[in-house]
Amino acid sequence: MQKGSADSGARDVAFKLLQGGSRGPRRGRLGIGSLEIPTPVFMPVGTRASVKTLGSEDLEEIGARLILGNTYHLHLRPGADLIRRRGGLRRFMSWSGGILTDSGGFQVHSLAALRKIRPEGIEFRSHLDGSSHFFTPEGVLDIQADLGSDISMVLDVCTTPPTEERRAREDMELTVGWAERSISRRRQMEHEGTWAGALFGIVQGSTFPHLRSRCARALAGLGFDGYALGGFSVGESAEERYPAMDAALGALPKASPRYLMGMGTPADILDAVGRGVDMFDCVLPTRNARKGTVYTWGGKLVVKKRIYAEDDSPLDPECRCPTCRRYSRAYLRHLFRVHEMLAGRLATIHTLAFYLELMGEIRRAVDEGRFAEFAARTRERFAGEPG
Amino acid sequence: MQKGSADSGARDVAFKLLQGGSRGPRRGRLGIGSLEIPTPVFMPVGTRASVKTLGSEDLEEIGARLILGNTYHLHLRPGADLIRRRGGLRRFMSWSGGILTDSGGFQVHSLAALRKIRPEGIEFRSHLDGSSHFFTPEGVLDIQADLGSDISMVLDVCTTPPTEERRAREDMELTVGWAERSISRRRQMEHEGTWAGALFGIVQGSTFPHLRSRCARALAGLGFDGYALGGFSVGESAEERYPAMDAALGALPKASPRYLMGMGTPADILDAVGRGVDMFDCVLPTRNARKGTVYTWGGKLVVKKRIYAEDDSPLDPECRCPTCRRYSRAYLRHLFRVHEMLAGRLATIHTLAFYLELMGEIRRAVDEGRFAEFAARTRERFAGEPG
Repeated sequence: MQKGSADSGARDVAFKLLQGGSRGPRRGRLGIGSLEIPTPVFMPVGTRASVKTLGSEDLEEIGARLILGNTYHLHLRPGADLIRRRGGLRRFMSWSGGILTDSGGFQVHSLAALRKIRPEGIEFRSHLDGSSHFFTPEGVLDIQADLGSDISMVLDVCTTPPTEERRAREDMELTVGWAERSISRRRQMEHEGTWAGALFGIVQGSTFPHLRSRCARALAGLGFDGYALGGFSVGESAEERYPAMDAALGALPKASPRYLMGMGTPADILDAVGRGVDMFDCVLPTRNARKGTVYTWGGKLVVKKRIYAEDDSPLDPECRCPTCRRYSRAYLRHLFRVHEMLAGRLATIHTLAFYLELMGEIRRAVDEGRFAEFAARTRERFAGEPG
Repeated sequence: MQKGSADSGARDVAFKLLQGGSRGPRRGRLGIGSLEIPTPVFMPVGTRASVKTLGSEDLEEIGARLILGNTYHLHLRPGADLIRRRGGLRRFMSWSGGILTDSGGFQVHSLAALRKIRPEGIEFRSHLDGSSHFFTPEGVLDIQADLGSDISMVLDVCTTPPTEERRAREDMELTVGWAERSISRRRQMEHEGTWAGALFGIVQGSTFPHLRSRCARALAGLGFDGYALGGFSVGESAEERYPAMDAALGALPKASPRYLMGMGTPADILDAVGRGVDMFDCVLPTRNARKGTVYTWGGKLVVKKRIYAEDDSPLDPECRCPTCRRYSRAYLRHLFRVHEMLAGRLATIHTLAFYLELMGEIRRAVDEGRFAEFAARTRERFAGEPG
């Protein structure tokens, strides 16, 4: 992979598969500079240079090592140029861990007004002020280089089901064409000395297994440092999802990391780890936490409920996070009820600590050859959760 | 003073005047259980069982030792009974320091709907749900005992200028009458074993020096553990304020702590310490911080301003707080601009750390007999601040 440059802040990235194959649960190690990040890994989402309600010291304290930044949001505010002049996103937010950034394509898809996909790229208007922007495969690599991402993503076209096969194929083919342009642009940036870190391709193809495997093979032929699965958890059923996911995973090179974008209830993660996914991100746990619903080893817990008004036990008696070491359900319920800002923070700390612990337990179960059993037992704890 | 009881969580309170007299700058030590709190002291305001945006661990980290809780807010939600059943406010919010609570009178005055002052107490409707409540001098002591306050305040009548002398005298006389009832109720609670901690009287009398001194003498005759100055910073001019404040301070017993309620820009604190005040609280620094204006040794700083967009220095280069050790003005400006919740938290941490450091410098200056010089120099840093 690529040599980090002092300018951007991005670092060498290397993945080593320690156990497992092209399908089924895997264990690996993602090296970013001197960081060694065991996989499967969950990445908290730091949308606008902050994992909402938390500082970088909080992420360090709960043991987060790799976070996600959103190119779309950071491009609009404060702007990638400004972040480059601050020494990159890591220095800007004083973060010692690794940073993966998305390409911005998904937020353009979900947030921007007047989005228009052209062969050259995506034209859109900012959801903040209506200003016009144009994302190209080349341009989003420049932006991510400015941000100093350790791991950058290519620009892709996300297909939302239900869709006809023809539309899914066209989007997928455009995604592959943009992936080729991304590889060319990276090569050029390497020559210019402006590239550092890793570049991941993104597999599209909607719910059509043969399109997914075609896309995966095409991207594998281009030689990315890792491969993401895009266009999942966008409205498809589980019956549509998993054959398509399996088709993609089966066609990807075994030795490279696989990243399932934006999808991650505990049940989702267990399903995907079982199929061969190494990396996850999802805003759902932190968004739920800010609204008063957290994950615990006893299942989901809606701490705003009246039944917790006089409950002096911590959110999760099995948890050792800063929130559970110190505060009761009764206190958190009160904070949520009176809309104190501390409420969302304490709940976010716990729910992310739970996620990081869940990933640790998953890795241990894979190491010890008992993942299927662990997954079945853990799924039961979250049975019936709406996600 | 009073013996703490295990039930409520309140502890023994003792004040020792180390230096100074009835007027002019003083140094003292407020003992609360095993805590030793040097005075003059500033108390962060934890309105609803949280200093907004902060956890108790954050207050500990910046060195806060004594905080204020609002009886009015806690009475309405979650209710003093519930807090008593949780072991008191300190245990409820996992706070290792001391707690002073106000009597609720001021919030009834400023927030409640349909307030009616009767000789027996204050009738009001909740600003949250319109429910009817009645605060009496006796009842607010019961509430504060339920909260487990180390230092409780009597119910008083706050007079807002401009006012005629007759009205100010009537309010002051009612305040003194309620103070007598408070002392009786405390004696009764001591016999019942339901009282712990200290009780402070509150001097009223508006902008009339002779009413202030009469009130102070009357309260002193009742033998409170400390004396608060109420009804300041409610619209009076500095010319009206300081003669009234001096009259009150001159009539209070030298050996008891004096607490200026709810007033505390740095300039206000310097003025009042110079006159003989030992304790302060004020929501202004934390409220300003949440809006992006912090105090620094360089003066007030509006971090949202465009000039800080590319400023990599900390809020205050002289500060060692967790915010200044780690984050730049540029990062904070970005967080405020995109309305990230972390913004208010980081600014609050800094501004409170500044206040606590300011109090430390004030104490050092008093110890070393150079308070007047220190105050003049420090006032210059904040010259022209609107407060």
